[in-house]
Amino acid sequence: MSYNAPLKDMLFVLNELAGLKQINALPNCEDATPDTVEAILEENAKFAGEVIAPLNWPSDQAPSSWKDGQVTTTKGFKEAFKQFAEAGWQGVQHPTEFGGQGLPKLVATPCLEMLNSASISFALCPLLSDGAIEALLTAGSDELKAIYLEKLVSGQWTGTMNLTEPQAGSDLAMVRSRAVPRDDGTFAVFGTKIYITYGEHDMAENIVHLVLARTPNAPEGVKGISLFLVPKFLVNADGSLGARNDVHCVSIEHKLGIKASPTAVLQFGDNGGAIGTLIGEENRGLEYMFIMMNAARFGVGMQGIGIAERAYQKAVSYAKDRIQSRDLAGSAGPVAIIHHPDVKRMLMTMRAQTEAARALAYVAAAKLDIAHNHTDADVRKQNQAVYEYLVPIVKGWSTEMSLDVTSTGVQVHGGMGFIEETGAAQHYRDSRILTIYEGTTAIQANDLVGRKTVRDAGATAKSLLAEARATAEQLKASKHADLVAIEAQLSSAITALEEVVIYVAGNMKSDIKAVFAGSVPYLKLAGIVLGGWQMARAALVSVDKLNQGAADASFYQAKVGTARFFAEHYLVQAQGLKTSIVLGSVGTLALAAEQF
Amino acid sequence: MSYNAPLKDMLFVLNELAGLKQINALPNCEDATPDTVEAILEENAKFAGEVIAPLNWPSDQAPSSWKDGQVTTTKGFKEAFKQFAEAGWQGVQHPTEFGGQGLPKLVATPCLEMLNSASISFALCPLLSDGAIEALLTAGSDELKAIYLEKLVSGQWTGTMNLTEPQAGSDLAMVRSRAVPRDDGTFAVFGTKIYITYGEHDMAENIVHLVLARTPNAPEGVKGISLFLVPKFLVNADGSLGARNDVHCVSIEHKLGIKASPTAVLQFGDNGGAIGTLIGEENRGLEYMFIMMNAARFGVGMQGIGIAERAYQKAVSYAKDRIQSRDLAGSAGPVAIIHHPDVKRMLMTMRAQTEAARALAYVAAAKLDIAHNHTDADVRKQNQAVYEYLVPIVKGWSTEMSLDVTSTGVQVHGGMGFIEETGAAQHYRDSRILTIYEGTTAIQANDLVGRKTVRDAGATAKSLLAEARATAEQLKASKHADLVAIEAQLSSAITALEEVVIYVAGNMKSDIKAVFAGSVPYLKLAGIVLGGWQMARAALVSVDKLNQGAADASFYQAKVGTARFFAEHYLVQAQGLKTSIVLGSVGTLALAAEQF
Repeated sequence: MSYNAPLKDMLFVLNELAGLKQINALPNCEDATPDTVEAILEENAKFAGEVIAPLNWPSDQAPSSWKDGQVTTTKGFKEAFKQFAEAGWQGVQHPTEFGGQGLPKLVATPCLEMLNSASISFALCPLLSDGAIEALLTAGSDELKAIYLEKLVSGQWTGTMNLTEPQAGSDLAMVRSRAVPRDDGTFAVFGTKIYITYGEHDMAENIVHLVLARTPNAPEGVKGISLFLVPKFLVNADGSLGARNDVHCVSIEHKLGIKASPTAVLQFGDNGGAIGTLIGEENRGLEYMFIMMNAARFGVGMQGIGIAERAYQKAVSYAKDRIQSRDLAGSAGPVAIIHHPDVKRMLMTMRAQTEAARALAYVAAAKLDIAHNHTDADVRKQNQAVYEYLVPIVKGWSTEMSLDVTSTGVQVHGGMGFIEETGAAQHYRDSRILTIYEGTTAIQANDLVGRKTVRDAGATAKSLLAEARATAEQLKASKHADLVAIEAQLSSAITALEEVVIYVAGNMKSDIKAVFAGSVPYLKLAGIVLGGWQMARAALVSVDKLNQGAADASFYQAKVGTARFFAEHYLVQAQGLKTSIVLGSVGTLALAAEQF
Repeated sequence: MSYNAPLKDMLFVLNELAGLKQINALPNCEDATPDTVEAILEENAKFAGEVIAPLNWPSDQAPSSWKDGQVTTTKGFKEAFKQFAEAGWQGVQHPTEFGGQGLPKLVATPCLEMLNSASISFALCPLLSDGAIEALLTAGSDELKAIYLEKLVSGQWTGTMNLTEPQAGSDLAMVRSRAVPRDDGTFAVFGTKIYITYGEHDMAENIVHLVLARTPNAPEGVKGISLFLVPKFLVNADGSLGARNDVHCVSIEHKLGIKASPTAVLQFGDNGGAIGTLIGEENRGLEYMFIMMNAARFGVGMQGIGIAERAYQKAVSYAKDRIQSRDLAGSAGPVAIIHHPDVKRMLMTMRAQTEAARALAYVAAAKLDIAHNHTDADVRKQNQAVYEYLVPIVKGWSTEMSLDVTSTGVQVHGGMGFIEETGAAQHYRDSRILTIYEGTTAIQANDLVGRKTVRDAGATAKSLLAEARATAEQLKASKHADLVAIEAQLSSAITALEEVVIYVAGNMKSDIKAVFAGSVPYLKLAGIVLGGWQMARAALVSVDKLNQGAADASFYQAKVGTARFFAEHYLVQAQGLKTSIVLGSVGTLALAAEQF
């Protein structure tokens, strides 16, 4: 049940693909020298592997529990969170001004991955705090920032996002919670919120709920939603805790997975109104929430990568231990199953998808660092656009692949995989939420189609594909057998994605339903092509290193082999996906509702 | 949580694709007139839907339990099994000579599907009895048949298959259980068997264990394994129950799914030896077990189809009820989510895969009926070969698709899908065993490559593909827009599979590891192409019916739309899979064990 952070691959991606040196050269990123980053990652790996990872399985067996409005988190989480906070891990990417370490997102990202490999249930609490911090930094008044940010950044308090209501899931236009102005400038908040992750728990002194609600006479739909800060305990001007606020946890859910993470139903205002403070301006709540959601979506993508890595490590370990059947090519006795071709194939699907998704996510994180810190406004803008294009892909594709990887992890274990004690099944159960929360894959795909592709007529997508073409040229020029084989699949896949981008941008007005019928396949295609591109870049670097006689040839050889596997098992799917997108909507939309 | 058997589709497949009339015309199949079959299916649908289906969810929440060697099955199973037995459902396909109904496999197959849609946990018990009956019919002495068959066929007793041991899973050569001859001609059996489905329970008076074990001095490996019948209670010559035998259930497993089905660890011979009777000849146990495994493998394929249908129905029902977001093409209020293109896409993936797998499985069942009953020996032989080619595909592909379908079922439910009370998660958990037991997908794929493709140099596969080509010609000749669109994908997919069959048959000797590295993708490709072919046939028939002005145009139109969807979302994957098989082994085998 152990977890060893894949530091070697993480550092390879940071240094060779995501350009840590270039990030380190930006203003505000001077502390992130390659040496410092390596030391931070090693420390984080130790914490994730030694303190958090061992809690994952027991926390599934004895989940957090609810009684009389109180949630008792699973054994060990409270102490572990204290250690997490004291070590400063909550603040890695947050401003030094509020007690954070102020490091680039590129550095925070592998930390996020490691924490999620260790335990998604545990990692959700800091992930939600990150979102609350982000929202306050963006839209909070100086007063709110002064009172709340340091406590959140230090991990003394935690944060939540309160969006969903029973009738308002993907469609936030239907939010009904109300916020009525009080004489002192605060609001009385009323309503029921569901699926609130860590909406109630005993790991911190206070919980800072960010809540979407409507003020009286607010416009209908999404344009009438405001964002409120509603603390569990009211906070005095000096930061000390005051009275218990009128927000209560009436139950927690009985879930398929991530059982140790309490998913609360919160009742606001049953006793006169929960006192809340408006964040930013009235009716702009959804806009602020989107800022925090973009961060959270990227974070959920990292959860997919984290759990995929954990499932992969577990499967590899089993495959090396389990002795069964002779080697196909030999006649000696039974061998470890890792020597059987189909077991290798399964492990390679797990490995290749995880590595590709990791590379793409880290590269995306670097884009955001550039967008935030570069001195040239045009460069900032271009990188911001690329980051925003990549966020739904990082979220949607990385989590969808995690379903496949954790399922394959069960399969590698054979009958043992189906027995809960083995632990492979937990990853399968835990991962199943990742394609749903923070926006389902369809919601990500709609975002990719609408805001990220149609709005700029595919310009950002095409700019990425032009870069990918340049990589393909390099592969071809190398005349290296593996690189040339990768090039064949990469070039064909780039063409497929280009055609799809043109199709999506060109047909939105004339046939909106047909375009959206292909939105999820488009997201999947984009993930495969852009992830495959990163793997191709990795192979190029690795061949270079091997040619230079680098130490650790085995690592670079494995990278080339994994990239080739990705090309010939994933990039090859591009043409089929293109056809499904461009032609397949007829079948998708053929049946009327009553024909189902 | 209800289940309504898809009788319309079942009857369409039976009559239009699987050739029920032709089967009915065979010797021994005279009773299976289309009218009788329809009546039987209606009765079975009632039983499955009203008696069994309501038990499925409660049985997951309060599974079967073990105490002091006794297993108490979940509430309601005992009474339901009594009803099942009394109605004669255990005997549908078994000989009238032993109290069965003697109906063709083609008729038993939809019954099997319905029972598994209702509850896989419940259906496993009769499925295992079917296997035991099959083995006794094949290899049992007249005496054994006389004593055991009637009781098994009536459901008074049940059967089990005891293959797996801790060190012997996929590799039965490693079986260590021992059978020592006793003076009276019986054997004393010793050993530990694991993962024994319904190895202990309280639903029947006696349990008939079929056990693989080695006699003293038996050859090493698979050629030294014999099959023994070891009853829970010894049976007197008159069929009455005697003493308790020395076989005991020491525990049952704590599983991810199918929790109501007790999975036992059985200990044979701890008190001097479990008394067993040799079935057939010594050292031919594996051969007999394979006969019963072929039936069981087909049955597990039907489990995949059954659970996929159940998950599909549940998702459709939710999608019709759940109101969320406006219609993309309109500006009115929020609509049921079934109107959103991506929800339609998800439902269509569930529907199309389930219908394709159903059609292929029923067609396979008809081949076995012809193989058993046709008057012409050559026809029998050819159909037997086709059936045997299809069994690993029905098992492997139908169960793999059930993982996808049940996962999509969760996704359609959004956040609700992750809450156990909703029930979608149960299907996701339950289905996860199907690609593992009765031979993992890799084991099916090895069978497909070795025994079913290489052995006859691809002749059977090619004969099927020639038939598929003829269907493609008909599609083309029709000039019907949907059929022509289907033809384009079908023809290209047939070519891909043909190339793969040639590759597999041609490279086995020169590069066995490369061929087996592509075995599971080959199985998947074969499933897609042959399933897509059945959908294409269904579309042809449906267009014909529509041209003739048949009643129920909506059904036939939906069939055409679903077939087109299958073509443009699944058949399109064929080229990519071909490339993975033919080129992809380099990447699959690139890493040495220590590089993982």
